[in-house]
Amino acid sequence: MNRRRRIYEGKAKILFEGPEPGTLVQYFKDDATAGNGARHEVIDGKGVLNNRISEFIFTKLNGLGIPTHFLKRINMREQLIKEVEIIPLEIIVRNVAAGSLVKRLGLEPGTQLPRSIIEFCYKDDALGDPMVSEEHITAFGWATPAELDDIMSLAIRVNDFLTGLFMGVGIQLVDFKIECGRLYEGDMMRIVLADEISPDNCRLWDIKTRNKMDKDRFRENLGGLVESYREVAQRLGILVETDNALTTGPRLVQ
Amino acid sequence: MNRRRRIYEGKAKILFEGPEPGTLVQYFKDDATAGNGARHEVIDGKGVLNNRISEFIFTKLNGLGIPTHFLKRINMREQLIKEVEIIPLEIIVRNVAAGSLVKRLGLEPGTQLPRSIIEFCYKDDALGDPMVSEEHITAFGWATPAELDDIMSLAIRVNDFLTGLFMGVGIQLVDFKIECGRLYEGDMMRIVLADEISPDNCRLWDIKTRNKMDKDRFRENLGGLVESYREVAQRLGILVETDNALTTGPRLVQ
Repeated sequence: MNRRRRIYEGKAKILFEGPEPGTLVQYFKDDATAGNGARHEVIDGKGVLNNRISEFIFTKLNGLGIPTHFLKRINMREQLIKEVEIIPLEIIVRNVAAGSLVKRLGLEPGTQLPRSIIEFCYKDDALGDPMVSEEHITAFGWATPAELDDIMSLAIRVNDFLTGLFMGVGIQLVDFKIECGRLYEGDMMRIVLADEISPDNCRLWDIKTRNKMDKDRFRENLGGLVESYREVAQRLGILVETDNALTTGPRLVQ
Repeated sequence: MNRRRRIYEGKAKILFEGPEPGTLVQYFKDDATAGNGARHEVIDGKGVLNNRISEFIFTKLNGLGIPTHFLKRINMREQLIKEVEIIPLEIIVRNVAAGSLVKRLGLEPGTQLPRSIIEFCYKDDALGDPMVSEEHITAFGWATPAELDDIMSLAIRVNDFLTGLFMGVGIQLVDFKIECGRLYEGDMMRIVLADEISPDNCRLWDIKTRNKMDKDRFRENLGGLVESYREVAQRLGILVETDNALTTGPRLVQ
């Protein structure tokens, strides 16, 4: 792994040059950060779980004809992905009021929104990923109006699928964040889902207990983060039900 | 004046019941606030100047067929306006980077923007008038998509006119804020420009000296606010050129 060229290192993942042109290897770290990196911890086993959960979701999305960068999982911590030109936006889809929207608009946490709302933040750690509107995005050329249309359609499809998927296993999808990229194939370019989808970038509430099963456990110092992620993976059928050894980490279904 | 029913009091204006149904009287105060009301001063003569500058601009906009709530000026501090249902948005049009956009996106103040950018803030003092996007506006029903289209068209027309008007008198229109309302006439409803347009809600920079001629003089403690507003009025031909008595306040052309 050390010989490979490192393309990019983010807070929770590293991208390496892939085995063939146009491919990359996405490596899942155990690092957890909050407050735009102000807090940082290493949480043993998180990367392994996110790799598996994200593999599961991206495979299903590919199967539905929702284009993604995902090719295949390589090992416990790595995925083979298509190289894309990342659009510098965090795309947030909200179904229920939580997080920054609660503060911004003075809403009661847990309020069902009148409809799903898509928000955009400009990816820039130094600026704290500021919220931007379609006006900023198109004026500064971060994405064209046509690309934004594709991104929003894709975000809505992902929301429809994930809402159903999680509902089926007793979990409410409160909100989630995705990233998109431009995939160039010959003369063609299309917008595809990139990055990952895992409890690191979704808000997932147990429908019965209202317990949080996502990264808010870390942000709010609730503890039990890996246990929650493992529970999500188990409910999705990724981990064998009998596995509850907290110390040895998840035993993965092959 | 004291007998009239007070409909609404804002930071810089008061609305009273008008002489006929469907009309209101808009009274311009001398109060200046900054930081969402954190700082507050009374600046002698500001209301009189804003009343005249806003009258001048709204009259020209009406003449261009851009619908506004303005009917006529009544006296030094008051205008007769049509009663409208205010849409709870501040609509900001930016031509050059300044103010909150500079901080939000890390731009150099004074940078020409790639194109004019329209921003929306939700009018709520307790929340600090948070920036919102078309998604929030339509999801929460503050305006319909069709109304937003009308608002944006109107904002662009106002920007086109004001940019030219101020350029003609040696002033760069950096940005400005407007408000819109729903005007009901019989079975018809249309979006009209409401509130005021004055150096209180425009950024105006002298093209030659780059001096600020707007409320930033107050926000940034530069002094000389009324003198700047008077200079704007004089350049627009509203005040007689010979008037430079700073102590007696502006002498108005009748």
